[in-house]
Amino acid sequence: MSILVVGSVALDTVKTPKGKVSRVLGGSASYFSVSAANFSKVSLVAVVGEDFDHSYIRLLKRRNINLNGLKKQEGKTFSWSGEYGEDFGDANTIATNLNVFADFKPFIPESLKKHPYLFLANIDPQLQLNVLQQVNQPKITACDTMNYWINTKQKYLVKLIKKVDIFFLNESEARLLTQKSNIVSAGKRILKMGPKVVLIKKGENGAILFSQKKTFVAPAFLLEKIVDPTGAGDTFAGGFMGHICKAKKLDFTCLRNAVL
Amino acid sequence: MSILVVGSVALDTVKTPKGKVSRVLGGSASYFSVSAANFSKVSLVAVVGEDFDHSYIRLLKRRNINLNGLKKQEGKTFSWSGEYGEDFGDANTIATNLNVFADFKPFIPESLKKHPYLFLANIDPQLQLNVLQQVNQPKITACDTMNYWINTKQKYLVKLIKKVDIFFLNESEARLLTQKSNIVSAGKRILKMGPKVVLIKKGENGAILFSQKKTFVAPAFLLEKIVDPTGAGDTFAGGFMGHICKAKKLDFTCLRNAVL
Repeated sequence: MSILVVGSVALDTVKTPKGKVSRVLGGSASYFSVSAANFSKVSLVAVVGEDFDHSYIRLLKRRNINLNGLKKQEGKTFSWSGEYGEDFGDANTIATNLNVFADFKPFIPESLKKHPYLFLANIDPQLQLNVLQQVNQPKITACDTMNYWINTKQKYLVKLIKKVDIFFLNESEARLLTQKSNIVSAGKRILKMGPKVVLIKKGENGAILFSQKKTFVAPAFLLEKIVDPTGAGDTFAGGFMGHICKAKKLDFTCLRNAVL
Repeated sequence: MSILVVGSVALDTVKTPKGKVSRVLGGSASYFSVSAANFSKVSLVAVVGEDFDHSYIRLLKRRNINLNGLKKQEGKTFSWSGEYGEDFGDANTIATNLNVFADFKPFIPESLKKHPYLFLANIDPQLQLNVLQQVNQPKITACDTMNYWINTKQKYLVKLIKKVDIFFLNESEARLLTQKSNIVSAGKRILKMGPKVVLIKKGENGAILFSQKKTFVAPAFLLEKIVDPTGAGDTFAGGFMGHICKAKKLDFTCLRNAVL
């Protein structure tokens, strides 16, 4: 069994109280792939520019990630820079340069259309819908999003989540989307919008899984040494999807283990 | 086995997004007692004024709480009023009237000095130290505190926690006391200050138990309908202490069950 992930591959410049790194591998699809590849086979669809360092290609290949869908095109790679405060909470974005990502129209090669598991990482929900139309009826589909799309393209996002099985979003996004401050009410409301499973991520406070019949809440693994939280949500989604793909199931015990 | 609790009994006026109540039973020792009495015998030491409604005495007695140490004295009962916002987070205090509580010098009657379990609810750490001297070597001692004492009487608080077995405090108090933003570092640091067990409460995000050998993290029970969070921390401490008193143990399995 294998997973197809469509999303961003980026070069991140990140400053945290523990240090600074410049133009390192980032992007939702990178984090997701590296994490999911611990459990299952993964194929990645994304775009990078001419400046994308080959060492990152090697890093992804070493993890057995299929890069047939990673397109290199003229121009620069999507880059993001941000800074975290003492609490390692939401980053303060310093710059976002979409570059080649600005015109990204995901094209799924014929050879990649038959993956049974599909993860639509955080990109424009119109593009996520477009990818859904290209693939051949995957067994399980999942997506992530962000506050920006809830604010600017909610109509398409609502259309998308009607069609996916699993929806990942964080606490503040869940409140924004439902206009409900209670997180249980928000989770139940989102379930009614379509997905079979809703995963609300709470950062250092864990995650809550909502399904039609049951709810499961898990704390996050305690970390004393935090260096850089960038991509933590995508990494979580990667582990979750990797587990259910490997287990080939979707019963509640399996979902619970996937969260853990 | 039984627990002695020394703390405040108050009349609270509380406004939340779900409604308003006026002069209802409140105070750390009330919440603790009602909760702990679900598991063990409890004796309460506190002071109230002449205006304290007899229906609250009956409420506590119905729960089998020993009120021989509840002193009624001339003047008015300690009263607090506060308001919670949409997120039910920290209350905005509107008024605090110490009244009879201003001169509260806890006196432990001879008949109550031999409780094997002692809980020093949140009051001035100098008074908590004074109570510790009055009792006859309890088997297990525990205390709670608040940011106000960390800021104004830290010297006495540090002296107190050197002598207690279990220390309850919330996330922001742990950071304030240790000047460490990472909660694991903060918990470990507090363990080094004396207590065998440190419980860091995180409100709707659960609690973390730190002991010399192991750490346990638990999410909070999910609640869709929240009416009034006042006293949640004292209620948690009551359940915890009630369980360990009933179990007559302090091994890690017992501590873990006490958190749950």
